[in-house]
Amino acid sequence: MRVLGVDPGLTRCGLGVVDGRGRKLSCVAVGVARSPVDDDLALRLRSVAEVVEDWMDTHRPEVVAIERVFSQHNVRTVMGTAQVSGVVALAAARRDLPVAFHTPSEVKAAISGSGRADKKQVTAMVTRILGLAAAPKPADAADALALAVCHLWRAPMAERLAAAEAKAAELARNHRARLQAAQRSARNGGRP
Amino acid sequence: MRVLGVDPGLTRCGLGVVDGRGRKLSCVAVGVARSPVDDDLALRLRSVAEVVEDWMDTHRPEVVAIERVFSQHNVRTVMGTAQVSGVVALAAARRDLPVAFHTPSEVKAAISGSGRADKKQVTAMVTRILGLAAAPKPADAADALALAVCHLWRAPMAERLAAAEAKAAELARNHRARLQAAQRSARNGGRP
Repeated sequence: MRVLGVDPGLTRCGLGVVDGRGRKLSCVAVGVARSPVDDDLALRLRSVAEVVEDWMDTHRPEVVAIERVFSQHNVRTVMGTAQVSGVVALAAARRDLPVAFHTPSEVKAAISGSGRADKKQVTAMVTRILGLAAAPKPADAADALALAVCHLWRAPMAERLAAAEAKAAELARNHRARLQAAQRSARNGGRP
Repeated sequence: MRVLGVDPGLTRCGLGVVDGRGRKLSCVAVGVARSPVDDDLALRLRSVAEVVEDWMDTHRPEVVAIERVFSQHNVRTVMGTAQVSGVVALAAARRDLPVAFHTPSEVKAAISGSGRADKKQVTAMVTRILGLAAAPKPADAADALALAVCHLWRAPMAERLAAAEAKAAELARNHRARLQAAQRSARNGGRP
């Protein structure tokens, strides 16, 4: 499966494409989409969208994994980040690509085993996992690769979880049906 | 000037088109773009974007005025709202339409004279200003019209302010130039 990871941002939007089968992962492309700080917001969104759409059309990912934005930091920055994530999700939907959102702590936990790993640790782990000759720069680019890796490692787990939940629901349904049949049978004096 | 006002939202995105010359304003169209609550976020953004783009292409506004999102309320809702506002701004930029953002209190102040007017007051004022037979519903639709009215009333003011600031800067430049010339002349013992 090929995943495009996106670390949304107006000034630097991290982009990373990773191919994966099980634990065998390889980096296809990594970089950032930038927009001029002095441009109007709408033009900045357009600049970033153009690069992201170009990456989608060039690298043809099967899934887009975007970092879920929280509003815990600077309000102004967060709004721009959320707007970029909306523009990226729209571009994916228009190409019929499924979109998954992962929180920063999910990504850190998947990559390093700890939800509190710092940026340096995440970059070091991504470099090692993907067997890169050098650490990807800037940090936003490394984060985008980490998102893609996180999605590749979490997706099978999420699918197994969904399958297990579906199985449990089926068992519960069957159990209720048998229980009701037994109750009916008891009310009818033992006749089925 | 024709303005498309947008009150961004995932469940209901208010849309209102207003034509205006000075204080003579008329409502061209008003409504909402909706998206199914159970759909994935990316699909919801696509649903809303399709309606908004259709309005832009049908009503051909010259400007798009969007409510500026603040993260003071429910974080989850605010993120969706910010994502919709990003998608709307992108659609405008792709049509070379200028985009203006107005805060809720700017809109209330422009419409009712008070930054603290409640939704009911804003709806009542919009209905009166645009000479509508009935109050526009839902509130998101009325808010979108209020945004368009706010933009039409604020834009000339903003332009006059910008012109006044440019004039003041020019006067200051001229003054500094004359001052330097006088200083040079004084240093040269009165010769120019």
